[in-house]
Amino acid sequence: MKKEDAQTIREKACQILKNAHIVLTEEEQKNMEVTDCGFDDIENLGLQAVTYINTDRYCAKEIILLPGQFFPEHRHPFISKNNKGKQETFRCRWGKILLYVEGKPAPGPKARVPDKYRPYLTAWKEVDLRPGDQYTIAPDVKHWFQAGEKGGVVSEFSSTSIDEKDVFTDPRVKRIPTME
Amino acid sequence: MKKEDAQTIREKACQILKNAHIVLTEEEQKNMEVTDCGFDDIENLGLQAVTYINTDRYCAKEIILLPGQFFPEHRHPFISKNNKGKQETFRCRWGKILLYVEGKPAPGPKARVPDKYRPYLTAWKEVDLRPGDQYTIAPDVKHWFQAGEKGGVVSEFSSTSIDEKDVFTDPRVKRIPTME
Repeated sequence: MKKEDAQTIREKACQILKNAHIVLTEEEQKNMEVTDCGFDDIENLGLQAVTYINTDRYCAKEIILLPGQFFPEHRHPFISKNNKGKQETFRCRWGKILLYVEGKPAPGPKARVPDKYRPYLTAWKEVDLRPGDQYTIAPDVKHWFQAGEKGGVVSEFSSTSIDEKDVFTDPRVKRIPTME
Repeated sequence: MKKEDAQTIREKACQILKNAHIVLTEEEQKNMEVTDCGFDDIENLGLQAVTYINTDRYCAKEIILLPGQFFPEHRHPFISKNNKGKQETFRCRWGKILLYVEGKPAPGPKARVPDKYRPYLTAWKEVDLRPGDQYTIAPDVKHWFQAGEKGGVVSEFSSTSIDEKDVFTDPRVKRIPTME
């Protein structure tokens, strides 16, 4: 992903945050993480995020998804005695987020994901998050998510975040921020 | 504090959240914590809060302060080997919050606190938080805060919260929610 493309995506994400009335500093806007997981298909697959704080005890981020953008299935594995794997709470602030976790599959899931990514989506319990709704994902539980037609903003509250330890179902995924 | 008074305060807090475009569920609005610390002077002293999540690993709350309302000085002490005291990050979302922590005292602090509460305010390093600004308070550091003239909203991201363990400088404080 080219640097100028990441900048265009950041601007789109900032517009969504503006719709959500969430204020970032200029520094945070400039340094927003844009992650395409190595697929170079950011409008369909990836996410934008701002990490407000990440200590050895807790973490808080704002995650911004473009319209229809999805983030591939992964889990947060056991790390150590003091970090039994990341536990995270998604709270929808604006727009719509369809979250899928392990559990009873939805009979007619609402997500629309391009065919080439579908074989690696195995968790189909559907959690439809609108502003004010939230859901907590236990460590090691597979999950993925997709924004609705206008995009979405989620506050993520969690234990310590170590993104590079995430385990993705699709072996092609590279979980490195494209631009930081 | 009477139950109907707490309800009036909740309604004022909900209006501030509306100004901030922060969405709560009806349940969250109804159950909003209103804490007057036993002083029965809620418009001056106390806070309103909604705890989104509080696990043995992390906690996230929305704290809503009325215009000029302040919350008295306290610290989060060492609890156990696994909880060395609450660490918390205040992120201002709306309005203005003057946060005071231990450190170099501000020569002309902006806070305006009624005289009867002032003898128990000892931390005077001033942190002026506007939307998008944040500050992390280490465990055991004394702090207190006051909203600006329109009130304020702060997202608090932290390690596990055990409010009843907080140590207040003013011995008159009762840290129990008036109504939950």
